[in-house]
Amino acid sequence: MNMAASKCVRLNGELSRRFLSSVDTVLFDCDGVLWRGDEAVPGASELVNGLKGSGKRVFYLTNNSTKTRAMYADKLGRLGFSAEPGEVFGTAYCTALYLRDTARLRGKVFLIGGGALSQELEAAGIPHLGQGADPVTGGMKDWAALSRDPEVRAVVVGFDEHFSYMKVTRALHYLQDPDCLFIATNTDTRLPLEGGQTIPGTGCLVRAVETAAHRKAQVIGKPNSFLYDCVVKECGLDPSRTVMVGDRLDTDIQMGSTCGIRTLLTLTGFSSLEDAKAYQNSGSLSLVPDFYVDSVADLLPALTNNAS
Amino acid sequence: MNMAASKCVRLNGELSRRFLSSVDTVLFDCDGVLWRGDEAVPGASELVNGLKGSGKRVFYLTNNSTKTRAMYADKLGRLGFSAEPGEVFGTAYCTALYLRDTARLRGKVFLIGGGALSQELEAAGIPHLGQGADPVTGGMKDWAALSRDPEVRAVVVGFDEHFSYMKVTRALHYLQDPDCLFIATNTDTRLPLEGGQTIPGTGCLVRAVETAAHRKAQVIGKPNSFLYDCVVKECGLDPSRTVMVGDRLDTDIQMGSTCGIRTLLTLTGFSSLEDAKAYQNSGSLSLVPDFYVDSVADLLPALTNNAS
Repeated sequence: MNMAASKCVRLNGELSRRFLSSVDTVLFDCDGVLWRGDEAVPGASELVNGLKGSGKRVFYLTNNSTKTRAMYADKLGRLGFSAEPGEVFGTAYCTALYLRDTARLRGKVFLIGGGALSQELEAAGIPHLGQGADPVTGGMKDWAALSRDPEVRAVVVGFDEHFSYMKVTRALHYLQDPDCLFIATNTDTRLPLEGGQTIPGTGCLVRAVETAAHRKAQVIGKPNSFLYDCVVKECGLDPSRTVMVGDRLDTDIQMGSTCGIRTLLTLTGFSSLEDAKAYQNSGSLSLVPDFYVDSVADLLPALTNNAS
Repeated sequence: MNMAASKCVRLNGELSRRFLSSVDTVLFDCDGVLWRGDEAVPGASELVNGLKGSGKRVFYLTNNSTKTRAMYADKLGRLGFSAEPGEVFGTAYCTALYLRDTARLRGKVFLIGGGALSQELEAAGIPHLGQGADPVTGGMKDWAALSRDPEVRAVVVGFDEHFSYMKVTRALHYLQDPDCLFIATNTDTRLPLEGGQTIPGTGCLVRAVETAAHRKAQVIGKPNSFLYDCVVKECGLDPSRTVMVGDRLDTDIQMGSTCGIRTLLTLTGFSSLEDAKAYQNSGSLSLVPDFYVDSVADLLPALTNNAS
């Protein structure tokens, strides 16, 4: 009970100052934290740039698979954030890392995904097929007999606006081989855009393929720890001086808890303070952040104080 | 224990004869029971026609939404089964009945489904849109702002080979209105074809839309009792003298159990005798058939005896 009571504390005033002085590395989710769609959260870039200016390291951990590291650095720069491609750990890049270094894939990927995933796979030297539109031809017998590439050893499902019944069918055929890997970039159910608008997320595509294949995909994105593991492996960090900042309890905050680092919920995105309190009351503490702010910009005064 | 022990009995010899004399109405699933793909199960048409010849009533209850009543009667006839459209209770027809008579829909349907569903909706006087290919245009902002028909009051998901990300997006937008009905024809995960081949079933499409909408669809097909209710309402039957014959424990047999009629598993399709025994051992008796046969043709000798 004591432990529960000490969680979900609003960060402000002197507490913010002490918190920032205890942190060397800040891991930021992007959508709903630094921006919504193409609009930056007001004050977010000043905070991020100020953190870096005061000597802290910043990494961007995002489940969104629609951008390469370079595309993310571009978008961050365009919205005023100081960012290098090497600071970005998105699921397009990390999926390629997983296949190359962890799974040591020998063979091709059947990809349900977009251009960014394709580019990151290519950069990692992983041959793949399946990208782009896959128009319907013929009838059921033809779909059952679709040609298969015998070198395919993995199916990867990421965000794909060309997602279609034909793609689910091809994925099912490959996944009937139990040795074929089944990887999902992430399972977010919706993608939040500007003005509260929303479109279906990769999780919808993953569930369709899982249902056909009678298998569960291995998920690269948060709440799994793989993105964090990639930061640790490539850049190193001290977990006791690291914080994960996110807008989703079930991905960002859960991942931070799993990795044993501190967690900060910002209320500019998906989850609400009521959601967090409900988890706190029900004892699901891994989904409860250590701290929360209305917006990451709320930390600006403490940063300015620190610097002065 | 006694009740469990008396279930899952092989029907043959004298038992088959007594069983058939206790039955007036036989409800048949089609895929995996009477045919696989376009190949009739050997002896199945002789049995069905013999049952009708000896004065029993036969109805066809199928979760498959890709055919109208008339199309099913055509296919049955082509494969040698005596059948009238009025004996067919498929999910395309019954979904239209549900919307017209049970939900009393006032408005349009956004349809994820094929030509048969469209025809049955039309025959029931239900306006609908969404049929056919829905090519991708623009980017995320455009998808969030896709035009919506304000008269849509229901989303229906059936089998649709043109299933696509755009269709999931449109469905999500309509389903964000909690008053918009959300109907699935069925949730079968795969469609079995000739020679053990398989393609993704409507359940894959339903799960994708459910995941986007954060809602569960109301399901018309088995194991829900709606198809059975339609037979009762349109044709009447004596439950104590009716049997459901199917190849799937989780749809056909479960529905029969729910409706309080006897159940017969045939092993020419999806479920195995081992599956049934496993449910029997674990006490999940609603998934255990009263009887089983290797093929519905196994009942032919008893029928011939009866007639003689």
